[in-house]
Amino acid sequence: MFINFSKMHGLGNDFVVIDNVTQNVFLSRDQIKKLADRHFGIGFDQLLMVEAPYSPDLDFHYRIFNADGNEVEQCGNGARCFARFVRMKGLTNKHKVCVSTKGGNLTLYTEKDGQVTVNMGKPNFNPQAIPFRANKQENTYILRADEHTVFCSAVSMGNPHGVIIVDSVETAEVATLGPLLEHHERFPQKANIGFMEVVSREHVKLRVWERGAGETLACGTGACAAVVAGIMQSKLEETVRVDLPGGSLQVRWGGQGQVVKMTGPAEHVFDGQIAI
Amino acid sequence: MFINFSKMHGLGNDFVVIDNVTQNVFLSRDQIKKLADRHFGIGFDQLLMVEAPYSPDLDFHYRIFNADGNEVEQCGNGARCFARFVRMKGLTNKHKVCVSTKGGNLTLYTEKDGQVTVNMGKPNFNPQAIPFRANKQENTYILRADEHTVFCSAVSMGNPHGVIIVDSVETAEVATLGPLLEHHERFPQKANIGFMEVVSREHVKLRVWERGAGETLACGTGACAAVVAGIMQSKLEETVRVDLPGGSLQVRWGGQGQVVKMTGPAEHVFDGQIAI
Repeated sequence: MFINFSKMHGLGNDFVVIDNVTQNVFLSRDQIKKLADRHFGIGFDQLLMVEAPYSPDLDFHYRIFNADGNEVEQCGNGARCFARFVRMKGLTNKHKVCVSTKGGNLTLYTEKDGQVTVNMGKPNFNPQAIPFRANKQENTYILRADEHTVFCSAVSMGNPHGVIIVDSVETAEVATLGPLLEHHERFPQKANIGFMEVVSREHVKLRVWERGAGETLACGTGACAAVVAGIMQSKLEETVRVDLPGGSLQVRWGGQGQVVKMTGPAEHVFDGQIAI
Repeated sequence: MFINFSKMHGLGNDFVVIDNVTQNVFLSRDQIKKLADRHFGIGFDQLLMVEAPYSPDLDFHYRIFNADGNEVEQCGNGARCFARFVRMKGLTNKHKVCVSTKGGNLTLYTEKDGQVTVNMGKPNFNPQAIPFRANKQENTYILRADEHTVFCSAVSMGNPHGVIIVDSVETAEVATLGPLLEHHERFPQKANIGFMEVVSREHVKLRVWERGAGETLACGTGACAAVVAGIMQSKLEETVRVDLPGGSLQVRWGGQGQVVKMTGPAEHVFDGQIAI
């Protein structure tokens, strides 16, 4: 059987996207792992399976699989690629699509320039919700790890994030401090760790050490966590450009009780056909 | 402009193959580098450009580019993928194809099981030809590097190889001894270093530290160098199965003055179209 697929990326976070509305594809975990291999297969960070909607008020359902074949819940870069894909393939002509995922429903907007805006939900600063060990909620916490002492914000964007402000992302000790803080005892379910350089009140540079993955080119939830942490500390305005190693995102947040909106690119690289 | 391509691999050494007989593609060095990127492009170790023959006694010409955009001379895994590609795409129905490359002419045979046999040329043990610093040619040389002392064979398969016999490829110190011997003063142009475990007279296991690339899944010239070095030491028969991390090859050599023949698989992974 032949499968048609598209290879896409959002800031270098790369995806194989399969239209399972017009095709009827089932992939086992082993098949996904094989397709994910960058030498023996197609190669991707995540696989997106686009499916028909589960209810009439939705446009699509889509499923996200990691390269190890496990189904996962959330991915901002993948959501943008999904939105670009369904319009590119003529599966919809809407600029606003409502979609269900394992992690909940999403509304995605395709902007006039082709970038996609994703509603990333409300940040949660409640230590128990993150989870983060603290007696009371604060904007920053003092964390000690080996000989390091850092001021760290803690926030959940559906997944736990720690954010520290650094003088320069170039010299930030991401490879040493990242794993120390990821596994810090105060993050009982570990955390993604963002290293943010504040360039101006509307512009930051960011490197993210992702939980279980190490440093990545672009972490969408990490960009959101960093901006809301900066806004809570009154260091940033409501709309902020975030420069990540893979490219730039725009993050908007109106403050407590509001949802975070993230706008960024989704690039189509090539179309392919593979026999499975 | 859209380019049609195939993604293939030989023992995990992966290639994008472009039919430039029926297409008219020119790629700049920057375009090749972009296509080679595994997140932003297609991803490959090498790009093969299949072209019409330069003379009537040849079937094709093909060019090989590394991921950095540089044109290179020789690749056994790529030659097998080329031979599979031209039959698969209907560019020829011959089992034996004669082809010119930057590194010289090659004759390739597609076997009944789809594996491909490549004439890898004659090994050269002459120290000056390798190049290797030695007063006279020997089957093995004693090399010292840091606290290590090893018996090392030296042979050229068009590129310089050092081969050492180890008790076990699993425990071989490839990551430490590999770079030490690659840069050893007696290999003035550096060398690929093979670590060979002799399982029987017809079966070896091999790991190769490639010059400028580190350990790789499968080095075709390294497999040939290891087998001829083993035959010269009377440890191996004329036909030897070589198990590499990426899979198995068969290497045949009739002894001094003879060419080495290597047989192995070439796998088609998928076809794609990309806009450039």
